[in-house]
Amino acid sequence: MFNKITIIGCGLIGSSILRIVDKKKLSKQINIFDKSKEASVFIKNNFSVEVFNDLSESVIGSDLIIIASPLSSYKEILLSIKSNLKENVILTDTGSAKKEVNKIISNLNLDKVHWISSHPIAGTEFSGPESGFVELFKDRWCILSSEDGKETQQFSLLKKFWEALGTKVKFMSFEDHDYVLSLTSHLPHAIAYSIIRTVIKNDDKFKDEIIQYSASGLRDFTRIAASDPIMWRDIFIDNSENILKVLDNFSENLEEIKKAIQSKNSKKLNNIFSSTRKLRKDIIKAGQETDKPNFGRK
Amino acid sequence: MFNKITIIGCGLIGSSILRIVDKKKLSKQINIFDKSKEASVFIKNNFSVEVFNDLSESVIGSDLIIIASPLSSYKEILLSIKSNLKENVILTDTGSAKKEVNKIISNLNLDKVHWISSHPIAGTEFSGPESGFVELFKDRWCILSSEDGKETQQFSLLKKFWEALGTKVKFMSFEDHDYVLSLTSHLPHAIAYSIIRTVIKNDDKFKDEIIQYSASGLRDFTRIAASDPIMWRDIFIDNSENILKVLDNFSENLEEIKKAIQSKNSKKLNNIFSSTRKLRKDIIKAGQETDKPNFGRK
Repeated sequence: MFNKITIIGCGLIGSSILRIVDKKKLSKQINIFDKSKEASVFIKNNFSVEVFNDLSESVIGSDLIIIASPLSSYKEILLSIKSNLKENVILTDTGSAKKEVNKIISNLNLDKVHWISSHPIAGTEFSGPESGFVELFKDRWCILSSEDGKETQQFSLLKKFWEALGTKVKFMSFEDHDYVLSLTSHLPHAIAYSIIRTVIKNDDKFKDEIIQYSASGLRDFTRIAASDPIMWRDIFIDNSENILKVLDNFSENLEEIKKAIQSKNSKKLNNIFSSTRKLRKDIIKAGQETDKPNFGRK
Repeated sequence: MFNKITIIGCGLIGSSILRIVDKKKLSKQINIFDKSKEASVFIKNNFSVEVFNDLSESVIGSDLIIIASPLSSYKEILLSIKSNLKENVILTDTGSAKKEVNKIISNLNLDKVHWISSHPIAGTEFSGPESGFVELFKDRWCILSSEDGKETQQFSLLKKFWEALGTKVKFMSFEDHDYVLSLTSHLPHAIAYSIIRTVIKNDDKFKDEIIQYSASGLRDFTRIAASDPIMWRDIFIDNSENILKVLDNFSENLEEIKKAIQSKNSKKLNNIFSSTRKLRKDIIKAGQETDKPNFGRK
């Protein structure tokens, strides 16, 4: 599919891409750059790829460059690789926020570079190159975004690449992407962190009990709140406008529940608790979830 | 183990108890009462038990009575069965809030009745007698509470009963139970409902996208927010004092995150997002969770 691919940043996402590209032989050569020495050594020891110490050299001659590092590292990376890009290279990323990144790239005025951003909606609470695996993207969505939204030849090729990795591909504008993800992903994360902090700050007297009885609801939030801190810090700064808006909406909804509890308004509480069941049914119908009790946990 | 058990309310929890008692032959006779005609017919058709139309008759001669119906129904049930209770009967329940229930029972001045409350911490988002299953309580906790906290003969018997159902049993006072559960269970539920309502109320323009990309975090909250509305309405009214207190703490934590986003304070955000990883590790260590990515979903 490609002659040479460069993956910049080889954590959970980057190393999962690497594993599939390697297994399915989607590229004749794979170049890797990771600023962590430890990660670089791990990659070198486990895969037959070229691992670079110099970022700018890692992209020379590449047909596809994938930035899979935290959003805050993009600017430095782009400035470093800018002058070594091959003509007509496809430049993509795997970030969870798009609008700010697109501004950075637009301002660089990259010539003869096809910038098409990617967001594979997949992940676990684990990070680092040892946590990647070949099934990570299976049946997950990957959202592609580009400035003009045109189905160019490069767009089709990148689409095929993500399909080969296992994802189903959709196109969205940068703005729509950031808004939809602020609701489906960034809001739940902000909330999960707040819940866990509420519990952690609590009196140590009941610490053991809280852990023991976590299966009653808390547990599901701890998975979300255990995700990579740097990745999430960057997302919240990049997509702050949308996130603050939906957090305000959330606080209004929470106040509504609080008021109903305060006034012991059982009719109102019943309405609130009944209103939320349908969304899950829709999600299961859309194939995004199992209907097995307890997520099918064993 | 018992000569006669009566289960009042045969939904997810009650019917799961029934299935295990039946399978393991923990009682010579099983009496069932459910106020729903539909549920009663289902039980009659699927189990060899005695199903009663008259609640007060269902408890005659029983050694163990289990109330497995919504908290708001307890008072009426207790008034109805009060005069038919066998001497030295064990009276228990399966409710998720304890303090108010205990007040009701104390006020009834039941004579020669051993009131020991139970809370099996197990459940799914499904309700009704057809959703019960024999593995529901396997390796889950069951919290027993009683007024004096003494390990009486009846207490030991009830403990053995819950162990036979598959749970690990712990004792907690009514007050401690309600406080700990407000953090581990009631808080997460209030939050999950608020999140889902924030998303549902949203512009219909992106409804399909929100469902499609729910796997990015939202999905896990929809399971919680799909639980039985009546059960949760009653819990929030019964345990309102604790729940309002922890919701206020939660709002403070959320404001802290909001402020850090507003001021793009990356150090603060990093601290917040780093602080929450440890709790999950503790929960996994305590055997309350799998460390498989994605909860081991297939």
